Amino acid sequence: MPGGRPNVLFIMTDQMRADCMSCAGHPVVRTPHLDELAGDGVLFRRAYVQSAVCGPSRMCFYTGRYPHANRSPWNEVPLPADEKTIGHYFGDAGYRAALCGKTHYTPDPLDDPLAQPAEGIRRATLAGLETWELNDGRGEGWLAHLRSAGYPDEVVRDPFSVDAPPDADRDHAAYPTRFRREDSDTAFMTDRAMAFMADAAGPPGPPGSPGSPWFLHLSYFKPHLPIVAPYPYNALYDPADSPAPNRSPEELARPHPFHVPFRIERKGVEYDDEAVWRQRRATYYGLITEIDDHLGRLFRFMKDRGLWEDTLIIFTSDHGEYVGDHWMFEKELFYDEAYNVPFIVRDPRSCADGTRGAVMDDFVESLDVLPTCMDVCGLGGPGGPGGPGGPDAPAVLQGRSLAPLLRGERPDDWRTEVHADWDFRFYWTPKKLGIPPERCRGWMVRDDRFKYWHFNGMPDVLFDLEADPGELRNVAGDPRYAGAVRDLRVRLMDWRMSNEDVSRVAWTYGRRPGFGRNPFVA
Amino acid sequence: MPGGRPNVLFIMTDQMRADCMSCAGHPVVRTPHLDELAGDGVLFRRAYVQSAVCGPSRMCFYTGRYPHANRSPWNEVPLPADEKTIGHYFGDAGYRAALCGKTHYTPDPLDDPLAQPAEGIRRATLAGLETWELNDGRGEGWLAHLRSAGYPDEVVRDPFSVDAPPDADRDHAAYPTRFRREDSDTAFMTDRAMAFMADAAGPPGPPGSPGSPWFLHLSYFKPHLPIVAPYPYNALYDPADSPAPNRSPEELARPHPFHVPFRIERKGVEYDDEAVWRQRRATYYGLITEIDDHLGRLFRFMKDRGLWEDTLIIFTSDHGEYVGDHWMFEKELFYDEAYNVPFIVRDPRSCADGTRGAVMDDFVESLDVLPTCMDVCGLGGPGGPGGPGGPDAPAVLQGRSLAPLLRGERPDDWRTEVHADWDFRFYWTPKKLGIPPERCRGWMVRDDRFKYWHFNGMPDVLFDLEADPGELRNVAGDPRYAGAVRDLRVRLMDWRMSNEDVSRVAWTYGRRPGFGRNPFVA
Repeated sequence: MPGGRPNVLFIMTDQMRADCMSCAGHPVVRTPHLDELAGDGVLFRRAYVQSAVCGPSRMCFYTGRYPHANRSPWNEVPLPADEKTIGHYFGDAGYRAALCGKTHYTPDPLDDPLAQPAEGIRRATLAGLETWELNDGRGEGWLAHLRSAGYPDEVVRDPFSVDAPPDADRDHAAYPTRFRREDSDTAFMTDRAMAFMADAAGPPGPPGSPGSPWFLHLSYFKPHLPIVAPYPYNALYDPADSPAPNRSPEELARPHPFHVPFRIERKGVEYDDEAVWRQRRATYYGLITEIDDHLGRLFRFMKDRGLWEDTLIIFTSDHGEYVGDHWMFEKELFYDEAYNVPFIVRDPRSCADGTRGAVMDDFVESLDVLPTCMDVCGLGGPGGPGGPGGPDAPAVLQGRSLAPLLRGERPDDWRTEVHADWDFRFYWTPKKLGIPPERCRGWMVRDDRFKYWHFNGMPDVLFDLEADPGELRNVAGDPRYAGAVRDLRVRLMDWRMSNEDVSRVAWTYGRRPGFGRNPFVA
Repeated sequence: MPGGRPNVLFIMTDQMRADCMSCAGHPVVRTPHLDELAGDGVLFRRAYVQSAVCGPSRMCFYTGRYPHANRSPWNEVPLPADEKTIGHYFGDAGYRAALCGKTHYTPDPLDDPLAQPAEGIRRATLAGLETWELNDGRGEGWLAHLRSAGYPDEVVRDPFSVDAPPDADRDHAAYPTRFRREDSDTAFMTDRAMAFMADAAGPPGPPGSPGSPWFLHLSYFKPHLPIVAPYPYNALYDPADSPAPNRSPEELARPHPFHVPFRIERKGVEYDDEAVWRQRRATYYGLITEIDDHLGRLFRFMKDRGLWEDTLIIFTSDHGEYVGDHWMFEKELFYDEAYNVPFIVRDPRSCADGTRGAVMDDFVESLDVLPTCMDVCGLGGPGGPGGPGGPDAPAVLQGRSLAPLLRGERPDDWRTEVHADWDFRFYWTPKKLGIPPERCRGWMVRDDRFKYWHFNGMPDVLFDLEADPGELRNVAGDPRYAGAVRDLRVRLMDWRMSNEDVSRVAWTYGRRPGFGRNPFVA
């Protein structure tokens, strides 16, 4: 680690639940290489994303700021040009910062009207990140690979199609893809990540040769739907072993007004069929083990090259997936299955040796990734990332560095709750319910004891997680919980007040050493 | 009015209370020309600013957006470059848009780092507005006028100094300025406004000659402190006639934790002295009548030139002033004396003839000025200002056009409450109380019956305006009002949820005619 600046490998899966790793105690899915990473780092079991939709969740990770602050609360909503991302921070600090995989970033038309063609949305590369390889599902690099590997045009055109009988389940989860395991998007993106590491190392030389450190965002498209996997992952797990969904008849008997329309809109109703949830869960687990197998290849490559000891590794997902829990599919509403994500950090520095293999239950938000990477890599001035008073002053970042926890220190003032913010104007459900766009917003707060959802003008939702850890019984209307609701509402307001955007406030504040004569001093 | 596009004269005073006009029923101050304007337009008695600090209040007027959305919540906090202002909207529509007077605008260093010199803050002109004349208190144009009028250097250097005996009240409110009434900033700025109108009319020709319509922001620095006026305005009103401050001993006996430190910081304690409040109130009224006298000159000029019938006139202030009410000076905390402002609109079109002379109690917010001007002048596409779906789509503007009210129509869904948002990190009071910057935020909601203040982590404030219209008795802790507090908190949350920034959301929304297959349609 020349100059004390580690490389950074920021690995993200898409739509992977926190519980789907063997190190997290899952009864079925096997993830030996993620377990190995957790054994050499820290597994955070209570890590939450601030949005369970791909685009806005990623923008929170990239900017270290809540959706209301970075103003990109849904897919394809451009990230404003003045929002500095992890790519900018690391690029500016002399890192080679690159993207390998999915990003879901949309450039800002107010900054550059030509960045977006009139006919539609173009997915560009993430601001500040070199596009080493881009794959928002059907990336050109991967399709070119399939073509050159000799697959017929129909496979290249529609790589997730399968050979299935006409009466098969619509999702075809039991059937293998027509590409082989060694040609999957997961395999290809892993190969490309290794190629990047080789490229970044420069000409052959002894380990630790001088050169720029690198920041690689390796971002897999899976286990995002379609839930189809190459052989043998489609058949790796027996549907008979799939654990039953976390749901109760009471949820549908007295549902929140949003529950049923969202489960219709997102096709959760298909999961009412036991054969469907059994098979889709099994294949979903197979896709996760596929990723784990390739991470094993990647970790072996890094160890062989002497990169393991030089690289900060963070593994997480942009959000979870219900696969039938709460009678839902995908990730709408504010249940833990959608917002709690896998989160493993391996800090290569010796100061983190004391916590290797630890499992922590401190609350983590997606916003913490950026300040953690900056802290571990020594970016930023003495006052924090970006230096005091400038537009990049710490006040702009709304997350917190996990580095103290990685060193075994537990700050007294660590957060006691996590938050999420959901703009749902782009769905059909509010149109069906007659809710105007400006009212399509919900906030969530979750602490040790409670989870509270507030929707503008709609009934509240409260779960007592001590009595009901599965979030199956809404007690918001129970008078015994009136005090809890009152308290949680104030905390939501105070959270929002404390997290207004201060990008320009910080600039002004940093330039005012005094505010004139202090009337409290004689 | 060729082409149906009126000129716009947007007049703003600084720190003028809503009650200080004879047409508003004030027992002392005389404002015959404002009364004349109100008699020919509509006087809105319940107009509220969203911030009672000059800079952020003006940015709300200019952008039509709340402080949390335009991200400029305090003086000298730069307005982000992507915030479009009233100057941009009118300039883009072919108007000659100009500033004559105060603006308190700070350009965005993230957009142009060179816009702000390292050594301090430079007041630049408002984005989108031609700087016809700039005066943020001691404007160069006015000082040059004083110099050329023969005043000695010491007057030009410190124009608001007076010849007063050493034992005079610190504010010297009783003593005349050393400049004569015809050379005051108010007189000068009025002359410059008339010069602009003459300049904008182009070469001499019959009234209504073709030419661009104009938008003039005439912005007076007074009656902002220092409360000193030229003769005869310093002596126009007898201090013996000044109405007693709206305050009660109970306010100081059981104060909110912020009340006493803010009244110390802002020198409200000086107003405990009866001689002080009597004289300062009298001079404050004199400054208002001075403005009124010059508005009389201006209105006469406009009528002589045929401009009266061609011009939309809005008269308001950026915020109010306590002058001793609630034991306070200036405009801190959320009392009506600080947030309720004078608001008169004269729509020159015949469709507004039915409401001339009307007094309305519909709630108005500062955000309404921009959409009202755009509506009356016919700016914007069929979907509203800026046209549907673009970055200037109506959803970006958070105010509402008053044009229906001016036509005598009363929309069923007119707002039933007003809101304010205060970032007070720049004061000494939170430093004294040990409140960290990120917690220095307060929200206010006021409806027909109640006013509720919420500060992050501090006691609530609630006034029952029916029983206590003067806001003298905080009943937030009274159990009989627990239901009201609960309701008002939810309304504050819902207000904030409904008013997140959607500048990029609107861009995306406008480009999505459908969201894919509608699962609710067979």
